Amino acid sequence: MYSYTNMLSTGASTMRRSVMRDLLKLTADPQIISLAGGLPANELLPVDEFRDCLNSVLKREGANAMQYRPQYRPLKEWIAGYMQTLGVFCQPDNVFITNGNQQGLTILSRLFLDPGQPVVIEEITFTGIQQATSGMGAEVRAIPVDLLTGADDAALEEAFRQYPRPRFAVLIPDFHNPLGVSLSAEKRSRVAALAAEYGVPLIEDNPYIALRFEGEALPPIKAYDEQGVVFFLGSFSKMLAPGVRLGWIVAPTDLIPKITVLRESIDLESSALMQRAVHEFVQRGMLEPHLEQLTFENLMRRDTMLNALEESLGSVATWTHPEGGLFVWVTLPEHIDTTEMLQEAVQRQVAYVPGSPFAVAGGFHNTMRLNFSSVTPPVIREGIARLAEVVLSHC
Amino acid sequence: MYSYTNMLSTGASTMRRSVMRDLLKLTADPQIISLAGGLPANELLPVDEFRDCLNSVLKREGANAMQYRPQYRPLKEWIAGYMQTLGVFCQPDNVFITNGNQQGLTILSRLFLDPGQPVVIEEITFTGIQQATSGMGAEVRAIPVDLLTGADDAALEEAFRQYPRPRFAVLIPDFHNPLGVSLSAEKRSRVAALAAEYGVPLIEDNPYIALRFEGEALPPIKAYDEQGVVFFLGSFSKMLAPGVRLGWIVAPTDLIPKITVLRESIDLESSALMQRAVHEFVQRGMLEPHLEQLTFENLMRRDTMLNALEESLGSVATWTHPEGGLFVWVTLPEHIDTTEMLQEAVQRQVAYVPGSPFAVAGGFHNTMRLNFSSVTPPVIREGIARLAEVVLSHC
Repeated sequence: MYSYTNMLSTGASTMRRSVMRDLLKLTADPQIISLAGGLPANELLPVDEFRDCLNSVLKREGANAMQYRPQYRPLKEWIAGYMQTLGVFCQPDNVFITNGNQQGLTILSRLFLDPGQPVVIEEITFTGIQQATSGMGAEVRAIPVDLLTGADDAALEEAFRQYPRPRFAVLIPDFHNPLGVSLSAEKRSRVAALAAEYGVPLIEDNPYIALRFEGEALPPIKAYDEQGVVFFLGSFSKMLAPGVRLGWIVAPTDLIPKITVLRESIDLESSALMQRAVHEFVQRGMLEPHLEQLTFENLMRRDTMLNALEESLGSVATWTHPEGGLFVWVTLPEHIDTTEMLQEAVQRQVAYVPGSPFAVAGGFHNTMRLNFSSVTPPVIREGIARLAEVVLSHC
Repeated sequence: MYSYTNMLSTGASTMRRSVMRDLLKLTADPQIISLAGGLPANELLPVDEFRDCLNSVLKREGANAMQYRPQYRPLKEWIAGYMQTLGVFCQPDNVFITNGNQQGLTILSRLFLDPGQPVVIEEITFTGIQQATSGMGAEVRAIPVDLLTGADDAALEEAFRQYPRPRFAVLIPDFHNPLGVSLSAEKRSRVAALAAEYGVPLIEDNPYIALRFEGEALPPIKAYDEQGVVFFLGSFSKMLAPGVRLGWIVAPTDLIPKITVLRESIDLESSALMQRAVHEFVQRGMLEPHLEQLTFENLMRRDTMLNALEESLGSVATWTHPEGGLFVWVTLPEHIDTTEMLQEAVQRQVAYVPGSPFAVAGGFHNTMRLNFSSVTPPVIREGIARLAEVVLSHC
């Protein structure tokens, strides 16, 4: 058989396997308590409601819902209205529908980035953001993230000052993945102003904003954007269900035609059926009760996790205090390497994601990401108890 | 507002609007008979059957069908079995599920191509193939296509001989878009042998193979591939419905992990729900009767179109004789420019796609692509009559 070892593109040959995906397989073992997920809870997904919506759409629209179709205007209208409730002035013509935020990142990278050019990302960030930047040939400038107030705005300005100017920056302002922290209101206004001042497009990756269960809602960075330099990425994956594979970009109208052509070149379009079914779901008012239940449950689960951490690891570890989203970030004593410790944890039948894969420039070997949304409170307690046993055996 | 004119990537600033998409909008006017589509007929889509499948899957699997999930193994198994019926030796582990062939092309381009490197494509080819090659920075080597036997194998070898070696080649062997021609059996075996001899991956873009309505079925190029150098791209868009947004790549097993990581970096995954619903559809035996009806109708429509062409334009034009698929390619007298003539045609309330957008290296100004699958026979007759009026006014 042919060997492709020397025939792959630079990007393909340097691309790393996704640690999260590997963990997902590992934790298919039902004996293992997985705190490694990034999923909404199965039991909280609105399956029957969404099935109703699919049926209505197919009965009403028939083949129209199964064809190649332009993006579904009523869904864009709903999204524009939703963005306005978040404080973002936005028209349907500013909205471009994607298959989720990873595709949004891919499209915006293709739009702005040539290989070798600089981009700014957070030094701890979702691996998908690394794939859509350094994985596409960008030279990455990483900025620190404060565990209470989010990305370092002074470091962002410093990165913006350097030549050549970055092609764009990516921040996760709400319930950061993996950190769980949110960008402070002052910093939101500041980073929007910096993007405008230096003329650097700022990508706001915000799939979790609807999942706030505590504290005052903060406007998206996009709400502070008067110059059209902030690109908001929103997603139905966490607010409705990952299986719908839909999200959106909010962008200046004059860039929508370019975005449209780029997206067509990647995979033509999003499912006409899914667009209509998701619109049916939100139009029928099914989203609000769903989010209410989801955030109510997530709050209990976060409390359960933080309490369990306090009881069992309060003396040796620190962690973030997320007001929404899915994740808590835990920092263990300096001498512990969470990547090495993972084997032991899996033997003890509990899994987490080590911090290293999120660390753009290395370091953070003694950190981990824990997910509280996809497991029930009793399971969280048992999971943290097992994890604490493993950690404490190293202390 | 901020101006992005000088900030776009090289790829984004050179990417052209899709003529097909623009035509799609233009032809939303119900007065216009569109022979410009690339769609299956609305009235032939299996809407109720697919709705049944969605319901069964959601009732049976519940939230499992709405989550982030690994690729659905039973669908891969069915695809592997289907490939075997086409004469391709194939295991489920050779199958990677995509959102359709455009995504398959994007993934394989990312896998093999660095900007500036050469690839080989047909001199007349689907615009999406141009976007996934030259649109991603490839230097294109275009080879001629014979209107009776398909791509020129001698020219392919010539393009393979040159240094640097092409990173890959793309051919559409069955019911070519836009030409309607199929690659002869001799050439299939020959191009597979050439790919192996020169070590150039050959991408077989084959979304139409199930849509043969006449003549002997020819094995895919992949059936002649003993070295694992041919990559088969298959799609449910034309054999089931575009709205399912699913297709597949058949590739050597040792490349599947790289393909998986690349695809995750682009948009994570295909809808778990759609994968299960499509599997339900094929598993219940709904595909065969659907294809039978579809090809029966398409044959009548093709006959209607070729007869109408013969009657009204037989003395001035020539065209291909497709044995399946969706398209006929028409060549008009040399002095006619079909791009210029399109305005007149639209005024006469008929639309087609001019040949120029498909012409990789220019030329073919007197050609057009006609679609016979998405309109009924009486409409085809009326459409060709209108078109003939316009054409004959130039003769």
